[in-house]
Amino acid sequence: MPIVTIQVTREGTVPGADRTTAEQKEALYSGVSDLLREVLGKDPADTFVVFQEVELENWGRNGLSVPAYRRATSAATSG
Amino acid sequence: MPIVTIQVTREGTVPGADRTTAEQKEALYSGVSDLLREVLGKDPADTFVVFQEVELENWGRNGLSVPAYRRATSAATSG
Amino acid sequence: MPIVTIQVTREGTVPGADRTTAEQKEALYSGVSDLLREVLGKDPADTFVVFQEVELENWGRNGLSVPAYRRATSAATSG
Amino acid sequence: MPIVTIQVTREGTVPGADRTTAEQKEALYSGVSDLLREVLGKDPADTFVVFQEVELENWGRNGLSVPAYRRATSAATSG
Amino acid sequence: MPIVTIQVTREGTVPGADRTTAEQKEALYSGVSDLLREVLGKDPADTFVVFQEVELENWGRNGLSVPAYRRATSAATSG
Amino acid sequence: MPIVTIQVTREGTVPGADRTTAEQKEALYSGVSDLLREVLGKDPADTFVVFQEVELENWGRNGLSVPAYRRATSAATSG
Repeated sequence: MPIVTIQVTREGTVPGADRTTAEQKEALYSGVSDLLREVLGKDPADTFVVFQEVELENWGRNGLSVPAYRRATSAATSG
Repeated sequence: MPIVTIQVTREGTVPGADRTTAEQKEALYSGVSDLLREVLGKDPADTFVVFQEVELENWGRNGLSVPAYRRATSAATSG
Repeated sequence: MPIVTIQVTREGTVPGADRTTAEQKEALYSGVSDLLREVLGKDPADTFVVFQEVELENWGRNGLSVPAYRRATSAATSG
Repeated sequence: MPIVTIQVTREGTVPGADRTTAEQKEALYSGVSDLLREVLGKDPADTFVVFQEVELENWGRNGLSVPAYRRATSAATSG
Repeated sequence: MPIVTIQVTREGTVPGADRTTAEQKEALYSGVSDLLREVLGKDPADTFVVFQEVELENWGRNGLSVPAYRRATSAATSG
Repeated sequence: MPIVTIQVTREGTVPGADRTTAEQKEALYSGVSDLLREVLGKDPADTFVVFQEVELENWGRNGLSVPAYRRATSAATSG
């Protein structure tokens, strides 16, 4: 009866999407369940996966929000 | 000073509701606090309860999102 | 399919115990499941409860660890 | 590579705001990263901070939702 | 920069083990990172996975601790 | 009434320590409370901080456990 929580920033990773698509979520649920079945023998019927998308402004890294972090990182690399 | 986190899928469980109602949440907060006071002697004033409703599409079970899981389950039982 | 996480400090609340007893945990699991069934109609068989005991030194309040907080509080009240 | 999760009720704490402002979040991310660097020597570039605002109605204390708790508390103090 | 938390009961799932082995954990970390790279294009170097094993007595289902739940379930099926 | 959860790998960051020391934890609790008071005006008496140390083997990055990740990283840099 595993519980897997996936936290990612809310953004699109395929053209036209501004967040994770329903298809991508289905791929994550099946991938996680398969992995726990194969590695630990866990029954997918008892495997719960909770998917949490976090607004970019609500995720911090390197002392900055992700938007500010990305601006600083790209400025540094194109500096 | 307990912290209790309740995660449920976002759906109505009483007629006309599409999510947990304010009354239901109050019943959960008082029920959880009473339980921790009765079983562990914890002071309700120091008992925090965080209630998280998760979109159906953001909860996976049996390798599927909950909507897909429920379609498959009902198809199997009415098969 | 609710997930309820209960976090408490690791300490005994009945004579002779230095942590939550097995009986207390059973009472918590049944109390939480009953509550979610009564309030939200959730099936206990699909209700997961995760119980986490946190060492006193690993819980902070009022800018202090719980042991330090309790020493300060009792000193203040007996001051 | 610390992960710090900050959960607060969704409300404004500066004039005109009904929630935590972007500036306040930036101050939290930099404050948390500085603290972990100073105390534990952790690299801010590997320090993730997840900020979660919880609706007042979704946070319980003393057996009540926060709005009900605050009404009861203020009634008691002005009683 | 995803964060994935995996919670399972503390038990062995291979002969001779009473908990998840180091090899199984490595398989989980690589499987989760591969999945997030393939589905969401996430960089494994920024993907954190936290693995939490929970004592059987600290996990509840159907209003019982997992040990009690398993005794009741096996009694019912062999009834 | 904020809840702040700090997750770090279980290791010493000062000479002679194999984990976070009590003094370091006190510094974290007071630093977090001060920060939330200064930035959001939160009362330290209602600010809970939960500190979680995770065994190195139970933390994954780049598809590897942290020990394996660090071996690979140091081999690459000294390659």
